[in-house]
Amino acid sequence: MTAPRHAPGGFPVVGIIGGGQLARMCAPPAVNLGLTLSVLAEGPDAAAALVTPSAPVGSYLDVDDVVRFARDCDVVTFDHEHVPQEILQRLVEAGVEVHPGPEALRHAQDKLVMRKRLSDMGIPVPAWAAVSSLEEVSAFADEHGWPVVLKTPTGGYDGKGVLVASSPDEAREWVERGGGLLIEEAVPFVRELAVLVARSPSGQAAVWPVVETVQTDGICTEVLAPAPDLPEELATALVERALRIAGELGVTGVMAVEVFQTRDGGYLVNELAMRPHNSGHWTMDGSVTSQFEQHLRAVLDLPLGDTRARNRWTVMGNVLGGQYRELYPAYRHLMARDPGLKVHLYGKGVRPGRKIGHVNVFGDDLDALRERARHAADYLQGTVTE
Amino acid sequence: MTAPRHAPGGFPVVGIIGGGQLARMCAPPAVNLGLTLSVLAEGPDAAAALVTPSAPVGSYLDVDDVVRFARDCDVVTFDHEHVPQEILQRLVEAGVEVHPGPEALRHAQDKLVMRKRLSDMGIPVPAWAAVSSLEEVSAFADEHGWPVVLKTPTGGYDGKGVLVASSPDEAREWVERGGGLLIEEAVPFVRELAVLVARSPSGQAAVWPVVETVQTDGICTEVLAPAPDLPEELATALVERALRIAGELGVTGVMAVEVFQTRDGGYLVNELAMRPHNSGHWTMDGSVTSQFEQHLRAVLDLPLGDTRARNRWTVMGNVLGGQYRELYPAYRHLMARDPGLKVHLYGKGVRPGRKIGHVNVFGDDLDALRERARHAADYLQGTVTE
Repeated sequence: MTAPRHAPGGFPVVGIIGGGQLARMCAPPAVNLGLTLSVLAEGPDAAAALVTPSAPVGSYLDVDDVVRFARDCDVVTFDHEHVPQEILQRLVEAGVEVHPGPEALRHAQDKLVMRKRLSDMGIPVPAWAAVSSLEEVSAFADEHGWPVVLKTPTGGYDGKGVLVASSPDEAREWVERGGGLLIEEAVPFVRELAVLVARSPSGQAAVWPVVETVQTDGICTEVLAPAPDLPEELATALVERALRIAGELGVTGVMAVEVFQTRDGGYLVNELAMRPHNSGHWTMDGSVTSQFEQHLRAVLDLPLGDTRARNRWTVMGNVLGGQYRELYPAYRHLMARDPGLKVHLYGKGVRPGRKIGHVNVFGDDLDALRERARHAADYLQGTVTE
Repeated sequence: MTAPRHAPGGFPVVGIIGGGQLARMCAPPAVNLGLTLSVLAEGPDAAAALVTPSAPVGSYLDVDDVVRFARDCDVVTFDHEHVPQEILQRLVEAGVEVHPGPEALRHAQDKLVMRKRLSDMGIPVPAWAAVSSLEEVSAFADEHGWPVVLKTPTGGYDGKGVLVASSPDEAREWVERGGGLLIEEAVPFVRELAVLVARSPSGQAAVWPVVETVQTDGICTEVLAPAPDLPEELATALVERALRIAGELGVTGVMAVEVFQTRDGGYLVNELAMRPHNSGHWTMDGSVTSQFEQHLRAVLDLPLGDTRARNRWTVMGNVLGGQYRELYPAYRHLMARDPGLKVHLYGKGVRPGRKIGHVNVFGDDLDALRERARHAADYLQGTVTE
């Protein structure tokens, strides 16, 4: 590995472990601010490696790769939450600035740790337990009813690692794999919300407006910013809770708090993600400061930027892989149809259902914006053809 | 040179000759759109080379360097207007898509060619002549009065290549250098304006709102978008003229038309630039489509984006090199003082008076925005310290 080449003027090198789209989308604000990125990439064609001059290939599971990579960086942060605690500890012991730090990151790595901590803090969460036998599953269901939700405590994303089981039989295979599971009540929620917060090592924090996230088959497909018709007191409570979680867990960088809005007008915290998050992609075009710029500012302990929305509404639509291997030819029709559409593609190969990009639109008419975002996402997926 | 590595999906490689800040600022929209940039850079530390994985080093004056570079690109465009016509012709003969093409670009390379063409088109320009002797200078001054403005027809920028002469003696040295000069009347203008237009090879064109540019010692220091108190009929005339110039000259990509607003409420066209331009840096944060995204779309013959302003006002302040060698430490105070400030630094070494970056601010109160932009620029230059 050669050291990343960087600009004169005292500008730091921000290292990102993982070369996915979240690392990739840090590149534009890094260019603007004169910062240098270095990415520990899964391969030379990783999404972020395609746009970053310094992108050594290595494994986040290999302590030597990670330590060697970190040596050239002024601060290290993450594209994902999968770097093992032992490796994170080694970085800290070597004097590397790691944000978020291992202690905070544990709560995004292990859902059991997260559930316990939030419960201890008095944050409303779904009823939950740790289970490792079918008897325990049935006992939980006797108390909270079927169906139940089973989750692998680590490694899940985009609906993977989550099973809704309506009977002991449906739970059997997952339980017998061993290793222990998180079990939760199936919450009859009204909709899903997300709160995005950034916090710096100095303790400064900033929150974007609360958004509504729309999921399809466990994958976020649409984000409405801000969440329509959100009662003021609920918005205030969620922002206060997100700031409290960030502060008490010692989060540094961006954190997303995923929330169920319940039928009684309350809420339950579902998940935590300690990195820029799909629910914040709208900020790239819709907020004064994007989550990617903010994440860089936070991990560098720079003052945080203004998180206000720039328009009445911003709508984000996720682009999932579909019919087309070649996406570029779709630009011609898409851009002609909607000159205000902001397209973000990740440089990833198309596989059905894979998140390969997103679009943002902003303006005053929410219904029209949703139609525009959905059309663009559907057109790029090939499910509409005009 | 190795071929630029690019994303799957039919995405093209856009080659930019020259690795300055204009090429650098194409990187963020290229990331967003999944396009691959390749930059023919002056050196490995050129502003754009620092942020572009494919940045072969070579000279724009060397036909072999340029032809070899272009071989890996689907389209070639420019960071500056200095590539010689012979080399441009060679590219065209080799079948390379070059935008803008040599014939259009001549009008931005040679001010005499430009003046003649605009005069022939009936576009208002300052009184002018080609001169190569002191007698011709004096004859021009007898008709139009002293002082006169002398310009080297090629190669000038940022006030370089321009001399205001109040007597034959002051003109002597420039005239005796030989090579011929453009002489112009010194226009008693009220202020300077700029019109930014983008045009695609298919002939689609789009114009941003007309802006006011404020110059200090021949260097643009501030841009107000849109130009305050601009009479509707003048705005309409300027937009119409800019579109006509772009069309008749066959411009492809972004072109800036620099204009004097005269005391009688009319205008005279001063300069043309055929590339993204300092007067359009406000669009990065202030318009739905930035000039850099638009330039990429135009040279690829993609449909053009919405050029509307996102706020009532956007103010751009240029950052010139000053006291500090290290700019990064200034971020702490600057970002804390103004969380809405958008900073753009170019990764260039600091030299007094050199353009090393700019800031944008947007909102409703023009005076407050001007104060914020000026403070940030002054603080980065070191002329204010708090």
